[in-house]
Amino acid sequence: MSDLELIKSISFSSPSKIILLVLDGLGGLPHPQTGKTELETARTPNFDRLAAEGLCGLIDPVGPGITPGSAPGHLALFGYDPVRFIIGRGALEAIGIGFELEPGDVAVRGNFCTVDEKGLVTDRRAGRIPTEKSIELCHLLDGKVIDGVKLFVFPVREHRLVIVFRGDALNPDIGDTDPQRTGVAPKPVTAFSPEAEHLASVASQFVEQARNELAGHHPANMMLLRGFAQRPHWPSMSEIYKLKPAAISGYPMYRGLAKLAGMDILESDVNIESELAVLQENYHKYDFFFLHVKQTDSAGEDGDFERKVSVIEQIDQAIAALIRLEPDVIVVSGDHSTPAVLAAHSWHPVPLLLYSKWCRPDAAKQFGESACLTGALGCFPATQIMPLAMANALKLTKFGA
Amino acid sequence: MSDLELIKSISFSSPSKIILLVLDGLGGLPHPQTGKTELETARTPNFDRLAAEGLCGLIDPVGPGITPGSAPGHLALFGYDPVRFIIGRGALEAIGIGFELEPGDVAVRGNFCTVDEKGLVTDRRAGRIPTEKSIELCHLLDGKVIDGVKLFVFPVREHRLVIVFRGDALNPDIGDTDPQRTGVAPKPVTAFSPEAEHLASVASQFVEQARNELAGHHPANMMLLRGFAQRPHWPSMSEIYKLKPAAISGYPMYRGLAKLAGMDILESDVNIESELAVLQENYHKYDFFFLHVKQTDSAGEDGDFERKVSVIEQIDQAIAALIRLEPDVIVVSGDHSTPAVLAAHSWHPVPLLLYSKWCRPDAAKQFGESACLTGALGCFPATQIMPLAMANALKLTKFGA
Repeated sequence: MSDLELIKSISFSSPSKIILLVLDGLGGLPHPQTGKTELETARTPNFDRLAAEGLCGLIDPVGPGITPGSAPGHLALFGYDPVRFIIGRGALEAIGIGFELEPGDVAVRGNFCTVDEKGLVTDRRAGRIPTEKSIELCHLLDGKVIDGVKLFVFPVREHRLVIVFRGDALNPDIGDTDPQRTGVAPKPVTAFSPEAEHLASVASQFVEQARNELAGHHPANMMLLRGFAQRPHWPSMSEIYKLKPAAISGYPMYRGLAKLAGMDILESDVNIESELAVLQENYHKYDFFFLHVKQTDSAGEDGDFERKVSVIEQIDQAIAALIRLEPDVIVVSGDHSTPAVLAAHSWHPVPLLLYSKWCRPDAAKQFGESACLTGALGCFPATQIMPLAMANALKLTKFGA
Repeated sequence: MSDLELIKSISFSSPSKIILLVLDGLGGLPHPQTGKTELETARTPNFDRLAAEGLCGLIDPVGPGITPGSAPGHLALFGYDPVRFIIGRGALEAIGIGFELEPGDVAVRGNFCTVDEKGLVTDRRAGRIPTEKSIELCHLLDGKVIDGVKLFVFPVREHRLVIVFRGDALNPDIGDTDPQRTGVAPKPVTAFSPEAEHLASVASQFVEQARNELAGHHPANMMLLRGFAQRPHWPSMSEIYKLKPAAISGYPMYRGLAKLAGMDILESDVNIESELAVLQENYHKYDFFFLHVKQTDSAGEDGDFERKVSVIEQIDQAIAALIRLEPDVIVVSGDHSTPAVLAAHSWHPVPLLLYSKWCRPDAAKQFGESACLTGALGCFPATQIMPLAMANALKLTKFGA
């Protein structure tokens, strides 16, 4: 019996409510001058009170030493083991731009690239053309219908694009055309199984049409494809946890991930006040809310320690309104660390607090990396957050007689 | 190599002795007025001395957030992963009343229920008839022989009963007759494989005979069956650990679980003094003793904080005699938490102490939930207790050359 099957076998629906507040990239590293992390530097009376009354710990989203991308980081928070629940690159790319993949759709990640007059790749990223150019080229290629298959072509950022194929009986068992090195021609589109031959033929025709249409757009005069994939179909949070879950996020990537977990998506602007207003409006309709705050990660990625501190303080102020709703369980954590001093995602465990009235007290009286080390939960896999939240919401029955 | 195979490959027999004292439902939650749990409130000089000289920690019997039933809770303490070592419902029910299932026996859980004149179920629990009525009805149905198969019918509590089939080549691959809802007829007894057809036919005849014999006993005028199962056969503690293990418990359920792990059962009354007398008498005959104390759990289930405190104090007093035997390893813990404020089993990690002369000192100087958080063992899966106890008894050799 897998962990999810175990939880599924003992979970039940009840009126109690759980709120999972994710501060993207929350975890940090000490400022060289003060020895304090971003979270430890921020003045956070509300988080500190929840930490003092609840449980603290640190989570490993994927595993010790592993730096998570946004997708695995969030899947772990929702209880899905990110090493087992894999999203194909094409599907992830489509989800990331907010494209709603339908059952049967196949998505693939594309790169605009440069080829010479012999057709050999000279730059796999077409000199990282600006996003504006990519938008123009995608517009040029979008909307084709080939052998009854409809194609959607969307720009991502710089030279990156995503192509979605919609039609009957499409199978993504197809190899990449990206040769992963220069000086050779792009690989032909190759089906790995007879079922995939139809789509391989469509994709191959598309690549040839693109070659012609891009010919005059040097350095972006060709494209490479990799990661043909369909949207994965996983047991939903409703099936596993018997929850009625909703996601509140201003960003398409996180809405897409929440959707894969079966959450309803509630539209919101990209600021905490708007998210909290949406929470309040919909509070009676759901029993699980995932709220996502992106700005902590952005500040960390920009290496802006002070801005990350200030975003954390702003969120702390704002969540007074969340606490007033008196949810049965409040979890605050992040999908990974993004220390400003590294200006990138990192492997460092992420501080976590879990508040409910059934918590046994622990020594952690503040919300911060060092204080969380003294918490009762220790350092633990992020996939265990959901079972703990469910238990504290009294939504799990006994295992075994 | 599984964990048990690993231990089996390095364990050896030696004269050193291990005592595992299980205070059922030991873990608690703070009293709202004092902020202290039952164990923290109790005066426990003996436990505290063992904790100060030994190691402390907290165990998760099944996993974080999972509330264990008695069976999985105990199996974990014996080193058997309770998610892998599953006991079918019928077998667990028979074990719970102390019936000795022989190899080949098939047990099934029964409910007396109410059916209307059309044979449709109107109450799956026959109005929860009193246990006395159930005893009378089981007596009526007990002792039949159908197609060479002997039937035992025992009351459990209220409307619950257990039926054991004894005969040649009985296969439990049979569906439940309990439709799990009212307004429909009980399902027919159905074999899921040809091997189970013989037993299905016997069970079906039994149900029809029961229908006739119960007809005048409204509301208990029919029965529903679920969980056909045989006694599982697992590697014994003698095989895995090379121990000669004995269980001392006044309650059939725990004796049955100990038996599944291959322990000898030593009869005792249901009080600690009697258990300790049995321990002293048999001390030279075994090298592992499991002592079970039920009253901590009963007090917790009754929501009686003070009584649970008082039981813990009484056990603490009594174990002076146990300590005087100078066993090489003493482990004190519980199979799950039963906080009086919840009046039920709970998911909270259970305090544990492990005393031996080979312990590296830790910060925990008292036996209590908060103090155990400062112990060297941290929060860990209960299945790791046995390897730790074996190591501290110097009964494990090096792994690998």
